[in-house]
Amino acid sequence: MNLDPPLHSAAPERSPAALFSRYYTRRAEELWPRTDDALDSLARYALLPHGKLLRPRLFLLCVAALGGDLAQASVIAAALESHHTASLVHDDLIDGDAERRGRPSVHARFGTDQALLVGDALVCRSFADVADCRGEGLAPQLLLDIIVLAGNTGVEICRGQLLEDRMRTDLACGLDTYLAMVTLKTAALLRATCRMAALLTGADPEITAALTAYGETLGVAFQMRDDLLPYRGQDVRSQPGKPMASDLRNRRPTLPLLLAVERATPRQARQLRRLFLRGEGRRARRRLTALMHELKAVEAAVGMLDAYVETARTHLNRLPDTSHREQLHRLTYAMSTS
Amino acid sequence: MNLDPPLHSAAPERSPAALFSRYYTRRAEELWPRTDDALDSLARYALLPHGKLLRPRLFLLCVAALGGDLAQASVIAAALESHHTASLVHDDLIDGDAERRGRPSVHARFGTDQALLVGDALVCRSFADVADCRGEGLAPQLLLDIIVLAGNTGVEICRGQLLEDRMRTDLACGLDTYLAMVTLKTAALLRATCRMAALLTGADPEITAALTAYGETLGVAFQMRDDLLPYRGQDVRSQPGKPMASDLRNRRPTLPLLLAVERATPRQARQLRRLFLRGEGRRARRRLTALMHELKAVEAAVGMLDAYVETARTHLNRLPDTSHREQLHRLTYAMSTS
Repeated sequence: MNLDPPLHSAAPERSPAALFSRYYTRRAEELWPRTDDALDSLARYALLPHGKLLRPRLFLLCVAALGGDLAQASVIAAALESHHTASLVHDDLIDGDAERRGRPSVHARFGTDQALLVGDALVCRSFADVADCRGEGLAPQLLLDIIVLAGNTGVEICRGQLLEDRMRTDLACGLDTYLAMVTLKTAALLRATCRMAALLTGADPEITAALTAYGETLGVAFQMRDDLLPYRGQDVRSQPGKPMASDLRNRRPTLPLLLAVERATPRQARQLRRLFLRGEGRRARRRLTALMHELKAVEAAVGMLDAYVETARTHLNRLPDTSHREQLHRLTYAMSTS
Repeated sequence: MNLDPPLHSAAPERSPAALFSRYYTRRAEELWPRTDDALDSLARYALLPHGKLLRPRLFLLCVAALGGDLAQASVIAAALESHHTASLVHDDLIDGDAERRGRPSVHARFGTDQALLVGDALVCRSFADVADCRGEGLAPQLLLDIIVLAGNTGVEICRGQLLEDRMRTDLACGLDTYLAMVTLKTAALLRATCRMAALLTGADPEITAALTAYGETLGVAFQMRDDLLPYRGQDVRSQPGKPMASDLRNRRPTLPLLLAVERATPRQARQLRRLFLRGEGRRARRRLTALMHELKAVEAAVGMLDAYVETARTHLNRLPDTSHREQLHRLTYAMSTS
């Protein structure tokens, strides 16, 4: 599974993805320069080296697919990633995850207060950056629309994280609650990312609706894929630094677990619950995984993820047929398990 | 000291302050309705019942003093208070302060994750609210300017909180570092509050500069007054719920302490440092306070605060002479100690 193919394989160093990576790095260095100020250092540590840049890449691909101007869209793409990074910093703090992108997370390296404050600062900076990008020739009203969408999305993400918190330890919460939570916590930002591209390019209502639905479906698929990582050996190697045991340590009812409960006999359900609540130990984890495979819960989760990927691709087909749409298809397909 | 006089004493229930209090309460109830959603409940708890509303009141007074439209300004005033509340919620978390406005702080009542997330949500909502208040007839470009200012100010506040964190336990940090920290942590938001009023009313550059300088000076005075509270008996009663021992518990070098160190003999300085680092115990606190009074550090801090209040009033005098300016003078004078 490769989420980061060069957008133009012919000349990777000049591909939009490579160009954006350079732009993003330069911009982060400019916004948070190498001074002895504590906040600048913290922000640089949180932002650089950057991750896969999924959200800005998705945004720029959608903009390109609708014939928009990539240079104009770059400030917004960078702000999206910066806001997302802030939410990861706070998320790691909440989950007690000590690693991120193969190195210590901000709170593990610098402390709780530091992680809290740099997250706050990154969010504020991202709103200011969008509001301040008049130089790009974007209409003030459009920028306000984007800010409203980003703000409301930020609220939705928090709503989702609180719902997740409430679901903790509750293996009986059910699939509907899980989907409601994922739609807020993870899918809201991908939905907003795609919708912003439609706003920016002045797309008609039909295309805007299709792209919004695409983003949301892709977002749910993305979380499902994330839930599946601990059960799929080959992904462990491709995700260095991902805290594999975090979901279990935080007693989080993920998709494969919830599907296992649906398929279990009452006796197996009690056993699942006992092993799930024990969580921490390797032996309990091995037995839990074995029981889930026995119940074919991982296969069921894979099937569900693939169905979401297919739905996402259907939404995508309502966009004009361009090479950029093709790249969006490839990016979407990379979420799947085949 | 009374920071909350009715703006028009003749008909207090119809005074701008009383009207805004009702507007703010209604708006918070609308934005965060009584559902069983965890975020709505948390946000209502954080926002209501509201505090003194110093920032929105200051903002509305400045708008009125410049002949602006108060109804138009109300959304922005509410967003200012909501952003400020978010920073208090995170601040209480950082400082481990269990009380706010005479009742448990958000993290003490609901938990750390909840305080973190509701703070994040309030910030996002406040940006969306400002961007979304086109209905008030405000120009999009003006709203963008206000968002840039609010975002940059949010970053400055975090910078100040990190500087404060770095100063912790350091009684030798010096007055310049203290003033730099206070200017960022506390004064930045009051400066932005006043500057926004100038932006909103399209004030000329001279008035804008005067009002900006006024806000910053008032902000520094506000923090100095806060630093002095634990040493001034009469204020303790008028500030129910203010965690009086927080500064000492957090080993924070406040203005009176720094002035005591400046005035101390080497032996007294060592003693101050020892008592300051011990902090927690009542006996150490009593001895510390006695030593500070002996060094006339509290009087020196009072003198410094009064000088800032006077400077603030000088800036204010560059505004047109109106009854609103007179009210700003009274509000400013209420910060002083006389």
